[in-house]
Amino acid sequence: MAIDLSADFLQRRPANFRPMTPIQFLRRAVDVFPDRTAVIHGDVSFTWREHDRRCRMLASALKGAGAGEGDVVAILCPNTPAMLEAHFGVPMAGAILNTLNTRLDAAAIAFILEHSETKVLILDRQWSGVASAALAKLKNRPLVVHIDDPYAEGGELIGDLDYETFIGRGDPDGEVTWPSDEFDAITLNYTSGTTGNPKGALYHHRGCYLNTLSQIVHHELNSNSVYLWTLPMFHVNGWCFSWGMAAIGGTHVCLRRVLPAEIFASISKHDVTHMCGAPTVLGMLIEGAAKTGIKLQTPVAIMTAGAAPPAPILKATEELGFTVRHVYGMTEMHGVAALCDWHREWRSLSAEERSKRMARQGVRNVVTDDMIVGDPVTLDPVPHDGATIGEILFRGNNGMKGYLKNPTATDEAFAGGWYRTGDLAVTHPDGYIEIKDRSKDIIISGGENISSIEIEEVVFQHPSVSYAAAVAMKDERWGETPCVFVELKEGHDGRVSADEMLEFCRARLAKFKLPRKFVFGPIERTSTGKVQKFKLRDRAHSA
Amino acid sequence: MAIDLSADFLQRRPANFRPMTPIQFLRRAVDVFPDRTAVIHGDVSFTWREHDRRCRMLASALKGAGAGEGDVVAILCPNTPAMLEAHFGVPMAGAILNTLNTRLDAAAIAFILEHSETKVLILDRQWSGVASAALAKLKNRPLVVHIDDPYAEGGELIGDLDYETFIGRGDPDGEVTWPSDEFDAITLNYTSGTTGNPKGALYHHRGCYLNTLSQIVHHELNSNSVYLWTLPMFHVNGWCFSWGMAAIGGTHVCLRRVLPAEIFASISKHDVTHMCGAPTVLGMLIEGAAKTGIKLQTPVAIMTAGAAPPAPILKATEELGFTVRHVYGMTEMHGVAALCDWHREWRSLSAEERSKRMARQGVRNVVTDDMIVGDPVTLDPVPHDGATIGEILFRGNNGMKGYLKNPTATDEAFAGGWYRTGDLAVTHPDGYIEIKDRSKDIIISGGENISSIEIEEVVFQHPSVSYAAAVAMKDERWGETPCVFVELKEGHDGRVSADEMLEFCRARLAKFKLPRKFVFGPIERTSTGKVQKFKLRDRAHSA
Repeated sequence: MAIDLSADFLQRRPANFRPMTPIQFLRRAVDVFPDRTAVIHGDVSFTWREHDRRCRMLASALKGAGAGEGDVVAILCPNTPAMLEAHFGVPMAGAILNTLNTRLDAAAIAFILEHSETKVLILDRQWSGVASAALAKLKNRPLVVHIDDPYAEGGELIGDLDYETFIGRGDPDGEVTWPSDEFDAITLNYTSGTTGNPKGALYHHRGCYLNTLSQIVHHELNSNSVYLWTLPMFHVNGWCFSWGMAAIGGTHVCLRRVLPAEIFASISKHDVTHMCGAPTVLGMLIEGAAKTGIKLQTPVAIMTAGAAPPAPILKATEELGFTVRHVYGMTEMHGVAALCDWHREWRSLSAEERSKRMARQGVRNVVTDDMIVGDPVTLDPVPHDGATIGEILFRGNNGMKGYLKNPTATDEAFAGGWYRTGDLAVTHPDGYIEIKDRSKDIIISGGENISSIEIEEVVFQHPSVSYAAAVAMKDERWGETPCVFVELKEGHDGRVSADEMLEFCRARLAKFKLPRKFVFGPIERTSTGKVQKFKLRDRAHSA
Repeated sequence: MAIDLSADFLQRRPANFRPMTPIQFLRRAVDVFPDRTAVIHGDVSFTWREHDRRCRMLASALKGAGAGEGDVVAILCPNTPAMLEAHFGVPMAGAILNTLNTRLDAAAIAFILEHSETKVLILDRQWSGVASAALAKLKNRPLVVHIDDPYAEGGELIGDLDYETFIGRGDPDGEVTWPSDEFDAITLNYTSGTTGNPKGALYHHRGCYLNTLSQIVHHELNSNSVYLWTLPMFHVNGWCFSWGMAAIGGTHVCLRRVLPAEIFASISKHDVTHMCGAPTVLGMLIEGAAKTGIKLQTPVAIMTAGAAPPAPILKATEELGFTVRHVYGMTEMHGVAALCDWHREWRSLSAEERSKRMARQGVRNVVTDDMIVGDPVTLDPVPHDGATIGEILFRGNNGMKGYLKNPTATDEAFAGGWYRTGDLAVTHPDGYIEIKDRSKDIIISGGENISSIEIEEVVFQHPSVSYAAAVAMKDERWGETPCVFVELKEGHDGRVSADEMLEFCRARLAKFKLPRKFVFGPIERTSTGKVQKFKLRDRAHSA
């Protein structure tokens, strides 16, 4: 007989069981590092004490404006202090934060505001144009609070009142609303919606708390860390670093515009130690550095995701003095759920071999329970052979609650007890996962699967190519054939023909994988640097 | 009206809500770093794959022996691979791990085995003497599995079977028992019991999981970390590093005997990066280094707790090349719950002033919700004036479940919704907490509170003193007066008189705080380096 552990006095009580919430991280920052600089924004800066006070004022003002438990507060704003304040102030009112992608058009913004029944919209003046157009489409206009940021470029003050006036109405000593259940909603992140209407992924306090700790562990942050905001904060809550810097008591450096000169100036001025960005940000840094000859004085760790960083970009970024950490995730898994965890044994590999390893999506992070490449039907793991393609599946406490008002899409996303990413990948013999394609991006030619990524990697090796994207093009005989969009490096325009590209590919690809068409020119991307393949598929026929 | 979030499809499901448990950390280590060395023990070593296999075999063998869900498995063993295997293998059987303090006497061991209804005792041969005596006192003898460790010094093989034979019966592919509830018990840690019978603090999977992540964050571990076991693993599960090295995929270096020569040899041989230990361990390192003239080649981070490291020890340890991290905790809070989080601004302080700051117990760790110094009656926080004494109180998910079979002590420990540490402290204006005394160690003289620690700090400043402990001595007139036990440095015996010590104190202490008696000679300590003041109080009168 086992010992008796069922007695009441051994169960949960307020001293030993408390809802986990990222709000606690701000409380800790202000208790431990009250006078340390929390946020730098140009000539403006706030200590953790001041930042906390502003968050509390925002929370209180929101409650005063009728936005409380279970209400949605949206924000359309670049990487500024108000955006950070919203990450704490909105949940401290018991409300749900909805960060809007600053690249959305008026129709998409209107859809999201209506769908989420947004009560308050916080708006940076620079986005007044698109916001006006969106608001005009709504039946119920939310309260609009405009931010008159000193660094905004143009725009109008179209709100009902100013952000500073608004939070000025809040009581910094007002009561904070704590989640009664750690699975309560904290934020709402609409997927970029490459097809159809965007879906609103609801995050919970528990998941954000745990994934924040995981990000601190894997990006190796400590209280001396200075984090530069080259990743949009609206993008899945800035991969949890919006909360993470509070947890360890570091310093945020805001950045309205992600431009190489401003990035390098901020790094040097503020002794930046950490940042994040899509591989396109890495590319931008390399180009910027090439023009100015700049190099980092001390190493900066950069976490990158959205696409695997191509080998030449990886190499050039590291030569500049960055430590690159390749991670993988998606909106539905609280942003980042996997990483290409580094093996020191890789140091002895050739640069090319090492880049190949580092380009893998890798393994689950420390708070994710499971990540496998599974057969999409049986959900059994595929063999670890680096060849068999399956779907990447996740299980863990960093899985979203579900999609707001969308039971069908939620049940589909979680079908079979896993989060189904829709990403197609292989598992290598060492257990590391490598994406081969999005399930909807795979090209099926004569019944054979062709990975668009494999084609892109080959085209990318051409010395004149700066970016490549392969998509399926309808074909009467084969069903689909590959069409490749190519961006050439500066000064290389007109130097490469489609025929030359085809010859280049012929030497490196199986015949059935050869592109039928090459289109030269700019490639459509989302604000987070993801190629919009649905647009390219449309263009493949007309181009 | 708020948006509707009550629908079923937005609630917990297996893909997004899973019991947190440290067992997951081992799964991750074996998936991510299967071929990396997990455990080094002299000439023996295991990779994470091998270590995991042995843990699974142990789990399966325990189940086969009838030790399953809710059963207690005890281990009496120094820092060896079997001890680490028990930290995973026992919970993987659904059982509860009870690590026995290797300094306990037979009566205490017998009490614990009986009180916890231990089903299986895993025993290192070196402890066969005390174990035999303890087992002889029991009505129901548990199954005894002896470890024939190649580095054991003496002892007999008194078990029913050998550890390797035992785990050899286990199936490495047997099913792991996962906790159905993350608040389920995972380990049982008996307090050292300075008075009365020891109490068994029950830990839960949730608390161990979170505190492990916190320890990784604050001790700044990553996958290249090599952890040397200078802290006994039996001591509150090795401050969670027993699980933590798996979480990040680092390497354990075992150590049966905490001796300076062996410590320095291990550091240099295995490129150790992290370790832990009471200030007595720091003192031992300093003495060892002084004899051999050794210095560290690369910095090693050492986490210390149990008592504040005195300034000269702090200084000397850092001069050897160690980075000292002072933490604070107790059995009931999963080991470590607070730390003297470092402020880079302290670098510009004088060595003395910096040592004073670093000697503070500090602030809560990242997963603890609250730590305050509160009035013991009202529980209101005391003023942050560095002077008002109150009791240290904790709230957080790293609070124990409670004491096994002891509802009264549990309810007392959690009275008022806080864990009551019984430690008396002040809060400084910067929010950092500093212990002044254990509530039972305070000396009340003529109605005035005298901190025993304050007296010890003064005596410690005397150049001949290596250690000091002040306790209350009954006094007819004053109720109590201070008596100080003093250990002198090697070669200083007989050089200092009680009169000289009194003069020394008179220049540095208020009159009512002056010790009435000095006793020179060895001071009783527990195995974890804590002074046993109850023994000194007895001796104060007879000495």
